[in-house]
Amino acid sequence: MALIVKKFGGSSVATPDKMRAIVQRVLKGKKPEDKIVIVVSAMGDTTDDLVTLAKQITSKTYGREMDMLLTTGEQVSIALMAMAFQEAGQKAISFTGAQAGIKTSDSFNKGRILALKPGRIMKALDQGNIVVVAGFQGITGHGDITTLGRGGSDTTAVAIAGAIHADVCEIYTDVDGVYTSDPRVVPNARKIEQITYGEMLEMAKLGAGVMQPRAVEMGSRFGVPIHVRSTFSEDEGTMIQEDCSMEVKQYLIRGVASDKNVAKITVLGIPNKPGFAYRVFAELAEKHVDVDMIVQSVRIANEGVTDITFTIARTDLEQAKAVFANLRKEMPVEDILIDDKMAKVSVVGAGMAGHPGIAAGMFGVLGDNGINIEIISTSEISITCLIAEDVIDKAVKAIHAHFFDED
Amino acid sequence: MALIVKKFGGSSVATPDKMRAIVQRVLKGKKPEDKIVIVVSAMGDTTDDLVTLAKQITSKTYGREMDMLLTTGEQVSIALMAMAFQEAGQKAISFTGAQAGIKTSDSFNKGRILALKPGRIMKALDQGNIVVVAGFQGITGHGDITTLGRGGSDTTAVAIAGAIHADVCEIYTDVDGVYTSDPRVVPNARKIEQITYGEMLEMAKLGAGVMQPRAVEMGSRFGVPIHVRSTFSEDEGTMIQEDCSMEVKQYLIRGVASDKNVAKITVLGIPNKPGFAYRVFAELAEKHVDVDMIVQSVRIANEGVTDITFTIARTDLEQAKAVFANLRKEMPVEDILIDDKMAKVSVVGAGMAGHPGIAAGMFGVLGDNGINIEIISTSEISITCLIAEDVIDKAVKAIHAHFFDED
Repeated sequence: MALIVKKFGGSSVATPDKMRAIVQRVLKGKKPEDKIVIVVSAMGDTTDDLVTLAKQITSKTYGREMDMLLTTGEQVSIALMAMAFQEAGQKAISFTGAQAGIKTSDSFNKGRILALKPGRIMKALDQGNIVVVAGFQGITGHGDITTLGRGGSDTTAVAIAGAIHADVCEIYTDVDGVYTSDPRVVPNARKIEQITYGEMLEMAKLGAGVMQPRAVEMGSRFGVPIHVRSTFSEDEGTMIQEDCSMEVKQYLIRGVASDKNVAKITVLGIPNKPGFAYRVFAELAEKHVDVDMIVQSVRIANEGVTDITFTIARTDLEQAKAVFANLRKEMPVEDILIDDKMAKVSVVGAGMAGHPGIAAGMFGVLGDNGINIEIISTSEISITCLIAEDVIDKAVKAIHAHFFDED
Repeated sequence: MALIVKKFGGSSVATPDKMRAIVQRVLKGKKPEDKIVIVVSAMGDTTDDLVTLAKQITSKTYGREMDMLLTTGEQVSIALMAMAFQEAGQKAISFTGAQAGIKTSDSFNKGRILALKPGRIMKALDQGNIVVVAGFQGITGHGDITTLGRGGSDTTAVAIAGAIHADVCEIYTDVDGVYTSDPRVVPNARKIEQITYGEMLEMAKLGAGVMQPRAVEMGSRFGVPIHVRSTFSEDEGTMIQEDCSMEVKQYLIRGVASDKNVAKITVLGIPNKPGFAYRVFAELAEKHVDVDMIVQSVRIANEGVTDITFTIARTDLEQAKAVFANLRKEMPVEDILIDDKMAKVSVVGAGMAGHPGIAAGMFGVLGDNGINIEIISTSEISITCLIAEDVIDKAVKAIHAHFFDED
């Protein structure tokens, strides 16, 4: 017997025909004793259509009512998917996030799963149902409906897989796995067969769009193997898990990621006293602006002030500008420079620790290609360089060629 | 301070512009201390569109998953309405049926409200919100989402008004009140200013489409005055309440109703022994086919068998035919005749009790017009005649003229 969670995204359930195709595929692969939970997103463009509708009513397309609105998209999908299974002669039942026992924090639009009580899911599975759960949603302790934010359906699927101790969580997508780099940029990028949670998390955070970081994190926490694979083919995709085979462990780096959603901020002349730099970051955090790479440089000639450079998501720039406008009223700074034409390129691999040659190789490739590195940041399993956006594809190709084409 | 529930149907909330118009109207009429609950249906044709979608997936457009699907329509409406109030500067919050504390029976597609715990509604009102509640839906004790069946949003509104002891429940509709007859059939029909629950219930059951019987019943049970009025005008509509003014009480009859959703069934030659006739009605009841007028006639010449004639809703005919097919296998009957070209015409009025002239007047008008009466049934406050469908409008006009044009 296998206990499997399968997640299908919005494009996979965009039409009744596509839903029927999923039903056929799921039933074809199902042994009689298998227990299967299906997590689905809203059909096709439904979420965008609902946002458009909201924009005709309000300028405030966020908050509690927005979640009330958007969660209807997944509710439509689960009802129809359950009907499609029933029509094919398979017992099935749909659950909203609340019915599936998904309790979240009170943060509308980006709820975090606090607890998942899978009692109803398990009971329905035991009664022979395929259980269809609405992705992207949960309910607070006060009974308010929340959404989980971007990529939330992946998180739902992995959280359920963790709570019911599923053998695997399959994420069906329009690509057939995780690649060593974005195949649209690097045509000879290779599909990765196995990757650790840590590496995948780093890849996801650094711009590989296939999986959302939060879902990978959840998989790691609960030890759920995640299989990223194609909706349209039967081929094996990429397995994300704790332990990979010996062969895989020999790789020094696993992929080259890039991210264009980056803006660089330089705050010039902050008083070099305790509290001032903190203040900048505290106010950004309060407005939910995540700060990524940070470099602080103390001026030799003027010890009273310091300059700080950091990066944020370009999509947070308007929010950040509002924070800066307020800050400048209350804090003496010389100037705040914004460059929204930046990008990040990263190499990721658990094997790179203790191999200083990786960093040197990466910097060398960038230098050879005349690409200037503005900031470097490293983790145990990644190295990231901030460079100009207009050379990001060139950088990704060159770095990928350096690490993958010569072995 | 007034505590008011206002219900707006699907055509009233069909577009963002119409929603804004409702917001303006509600806020214009609202005193600062007034507490207002808004109950809304799904936008425009949403419910029909969802049914169409379901039909592309399944032949079984009923049951649990259908309610899961359809309830999204109202959920979209409440979210957008709450946003529209907020955009106008008014605090507002939306509640699904479950959040509004509406507990129903387990009967999907036609749940009955078993309990309404208005705690969250009252708290939100006390916090200065306009509370927007999804009509037509509730939740079972097991946490399954149900719909309340046809006209369910009216029932939601009246039930909430009862639970929070509202001063009035206003039902906004595209007509400006309840009329002495359908104005499309009888152009000089008059708007009724006041009507008792009993009379309105009888009118609704007998075909007056403005209010659903279940909502009127609920109003009567909780003593909630119901004001049926126009979405598009400020005029007073029809007040449904227990006590009407003295002037109103003098009317012998209040309206002439008609219903074309009628089929006549005649079962010929049922054994005239205990249990056989019962069996017919028991099996129909089990399939949720309501039986209305019943006449049993014992044949003088053959005391062993009896004939039974009764009416059902024409929309239940297919269901009933299946029951008959089964019955004929197990019970000796001579024949079952079906006439689906029948209609009912009724006069309703609490004042008619003790005035035998009303019945005589009605039968006389029908006779004068050459209209044959097939079955007569009476209640304390109504008289109904089953006649051929093709003369129903003629009958309604003649009866209305007889009772209303001469006074």
